[in-house]
Amino acid sequence: MLKDFEKKKREDKQALSTQIKDLRAQLLAQQQQLLSARLPVIVLIEGWAAAGKGSLIKELISEIDPRFYRVVSPVIIPESSERYPFLYQYNKAIPENGKITFLDSGWMESTVQKFLRHEITKAEYRRRVRQVNEFERQLKNGGYLILKLFLHIDKDEQFERLHSLVESPHTEWRVTGDDLWQHREYKRFTEAYDEFMKKTGDEVPWYILDGSRRKTAVRDSMKLLVERIDRGLAEGRYTGAPYEEKFPLKKMPALSDVDLSPVIDEEDYKKELKRLQSRLSELHNIIYRKKIPVILCYEGWDAAGKGGNIRRVAYPLDPRGFDVQPIASPLPHELNRQFLWRFWTRLPRTGHICIFDRTWYGRVMVERLEGFCSEDDWKRAYNEINEFERMLTDWGAVVLKFWIHIDQDTQLERFTMRQNTPEKQWKITDEDWRNRDKWSQYEVAVDEMLQKTSTKNAPWFIIESNDKKYARIKTLKIIVKALEKACEDHFSQMME
Amino acid sequence: MLKDFEKKKREDKQALSTQIKDLRAQLLAQQQQLLSARLPVIVLIEGWAAAGKGSLIKELISEIDPRFYRVVSPVIIPESSERYPFLYQYNKAIPENGKITFLDSGWMESTVQKFLRHEITKAEYRRRVRQVNEFERQLKNGGYLILKLFLHIDKDEQFERLHSLVESPHTEWRVTGDDLWQHREYKRFTEAYDEFMKKTGDEVPWYILDGSRRKTAVRDSMKLLVERIDRGLAEGRYTGAPYEEKFPLKKMPALSDVDLSPVIDEEDYKKELKRLQSRLSELHNIIYRKKIPVILCYEGWDAAGKGGNIRRVAYPLDPRGFDVQPIASPLPHELNRQFLWRFWTRLPRTGHICIFDRTWYGRVMVERLEGFCSEDDWKRAYNEINEFERMLTDWGAVVLKFWIHIDQDTQLERFTMRQNTPEKQWKITDEDWRNRDKWSQYEVAVDEMLQKTSTKNAPWFIIESNDKKYARIKTLKIIVKALEKACEDHFSQMME
Repeated sequence: MLKDFEKKKREDKQALSTQIKDLRAQLLAQQQQLLSARLPVIVLIEGWAAAGKGSLIKELISEIDPRFYRVVSPVIIPESSERYPFLYQYNKAIPENGKITFLDSGWMESTVQKFLRHEITKAEYRRRVRQVNEFERQLKNGGYLILKLFLHIDKDEQFERLHSLVESPHTEWRVTGDDLWQHREYKRFTEAYDEFMKKTGDEVPWYILDGSRRKTAVRDSMKLLVERIDRGLAEGRYTGAPYEEKFPLKKMPALSDVDLSPVIDEEDYKKELKRLQSRLSELHNIIYRKKIPVILCYEGWDAAGKGGNIRRVAYPLDPRGFDVQPIASPLPHELNRQFLWRFWTRLPRTGHICIFDRTWYGRVMVERLEGFCSEDDWKRAYNEINEFERMLTDWGAVVLKFWIHIDQDTQLERFTMRQNTPEKQWKITDEDWRNRDKWSQYEVAVDEMLQKTSTKNAPWFIIESNDKKYARIKTLKIIVKALEKACEDHFSQMME
Repeated sequence: MLKDFEKKKREDKQALSTQIKDLRAQLLAQQQQLLSARLPVIVLIEGWAAAGKGSLIKELISEIDPRFYRVVSPVIIPESSERYPFLYQYNKAIPENGKITFLDSGWMESTVQKFLRHEITKAEYRRRVRQVNEFERQLKNGGYLILKLFLHIDKDEQFERLHSLVESPHTEWRVTGDDLWQHREYKRFTEAYDEFMKKTGDEVPWYILDGSRRKTAVRDSMKLLVERIDRGLAEGRYTGAPYEEKFPLKKMPALSDVDLSPVIDEEDYKKELKRLQSRLSELHNIIYRKKIPVILCYEGWDAAGKGGNIRRVAYPLDPRGFDVQPIASPLPHELNRQFLWRFWTRLPRTGHICIFDRTWYGRVMVERLEGFCSEDDWKRAYNEINEFERMLTDWGAVVLKFWIHIDQDTQLERFTMRQNTPEKQWKITDEDWRNRDKWSQYEVAVDEMLQKTSTKNAPWFIIESNDKKYARIKTLKIIVKALEKACEDHFSQMME
């Protein structure tokens, strides 16, 4: 009997090794297919301390060509990521089309642990859960395959493992205070993990793996990965249908209804400019100290005066605490990722001001009109952008969006002037003229954008800029007012 | 008399404003010229605390289009840069061709302050001075314009300024403990700044500006910048002549003299592989804790077996502590900077292992042979690379370089095999065949490279890889031995 039992065990073990070998070969073959199908893959591996997340990843990557994957773990995430929104570091880590990112713990661990340690409130916990669901849905809709695994071991098993790590001088240091705390609080962690998985399983399901049997866990996770990729390859790159959440919106006028006649006289301009710039300079000091991030978004017609407007806002700011991000066409490695990626990676740290000279709204303007993305893509983008901006304001950012507005006659005048002024010729290109021909199409797109994305938390302001000086003063006033309010709110929040 | 004096003063002030306005217009006009001439510019502004470095930068950038410049100051440098070599953060910040980087203090301040605070030894101070000179020379030779300014105020003036900052609640927080310490130690700082400027003025001269007269300082620095750019535009992009320092070299055989017959039998291979991988895994733990960075460089003939070799080295490593950097052709934003930039930005942090699958040696192989750089460029590169690697080993890194070597017959065999195996076909391209035709040219280049860059601190190893298994074992042995030695050295250094 025992002999038979032993034989069976040996056979099972042998079979397991063979299965793993086969799966590894399949994974290897899938690499090239992923690349030609341009499918990006994210594998999130969460689980208990000492459950073997690192070893599991080691097995998963062992045959994959390093050109095709990346491993991201908390140790390589810089401390400074604390000064960015919650999902910043995970957004940064998303792979290019055709490649794989393995995450050795991620948005689950960082949320649950902080919550149990009372470093985030219940409200913030709920926000994070919502953000995770939005994040996963946006990636899924953008064609990403996401596989979420939880490597489970029971409390006794964890005890054994921590114990054996501590016993060897080579591995003793690996057991951290956090690990021991988790072990002591095993029950609370169980409940918290459970709750998190329940609340974040709708967009992308969780798979629980038995971490106590290492080889089985390797086989099972590889199997899941191979199947998931096979399915993705068969179905082709997924893009989700437009989805719409009701955000509280600010009512916006149609562009054609905007009165562009306001002007300012030279004397008032000079006086106001000086006053507002000096106030902005003071406020910059305060928001810097209060660590309030500020994001100013500029969009508008060509030659509307964005550049000059931005310079007047930037001038009083301390160059150590702000930057201007000029947004041009995406580079190849940007084009190869979800469309918001290149904006996530450009966010300012807390206390800093970032001025975006053109923004993520390119998605629903130029990309829509030039067919750089599908209809589903740009229709979905309104909601994706609203969610993105809510993540920013949830984080505490002031987000203001300016549409610098002129009429067609004024544009023609300025184009002609640029054409006839040698040192300004570089500012005018054939593309500007081509865009001008599409004025009415753009107007439709801009109107729709203003209606659908002027949320209460991140509103649009139409800036009448036939008179550039009037436009600058109006913009500065809006910024000053918003920053004053943010400083007060921040103060009253602290007093509560 | 007094009336005349006052009048003269007013006139001077007026003249100064006019000059600044003119210079600003010139700077604005130079933007486009810089871009078409593809000249990159670095403006380093050092100086006393409260001397007005920030305000000066504010004035310099006030009219420049944000697409063309960037300001880098210590507050935006992440804390984690401490885990990289000294010049890492400044290397990261160098501009693309045609653009300007303004540094609000840089390699001078970070060296002098750390030295006076006894955070670095005299020896490390001297190393840094040497590295700064190398860094500046390499950039200069790579076509960068560098302007170095020191904003000077005397001790009384500094007292006034710190005092008035402290008096206002808005600016009080700006005065740090470091600033007060500098003020108390004004004399020691004077000597230290002086010494640093004396020792780093050969490649790129220092200009001292009178910070007590703000407007004059603005005018003078603008004037210097405009003149420097004008000169650069007139002279065209500079590339320096080859320069050679005598590095202690390890004698290398010619490739044609290498005996490629060594083989290993299957049983020994399995045994040795297991033993070495397990030892490497232990060592990875130790170097991680001792925070020793490790850089493994792979070069070799196409189909020599680099990939498989790398996988055997990577397999025992904890994925949280290493990464593989596959080096392909440079992307546009990489091509637009000094050639080592894309390697600087890929360096591992302390305690981590980075495996480069192809490296900076592309400069003296493919770039040389395909004419992607000038003859001066690749001839200069031997020395630039030796300096780069010395910066890495000075930082404490273990740098090992492997030339994976096979003969032409073996390559043909493997190419043919790849061509005939469906799942390996992607590995073989027309370019591989074209490179094969140039075998003898490559051999000349590789021989020269091995002779000129196998320094004692960062040696080359030729790995006979006609038998891939033999090659893997040999590589693993070299790595294990080097890491064992590094761990011992590290220990004995700590005991001294």
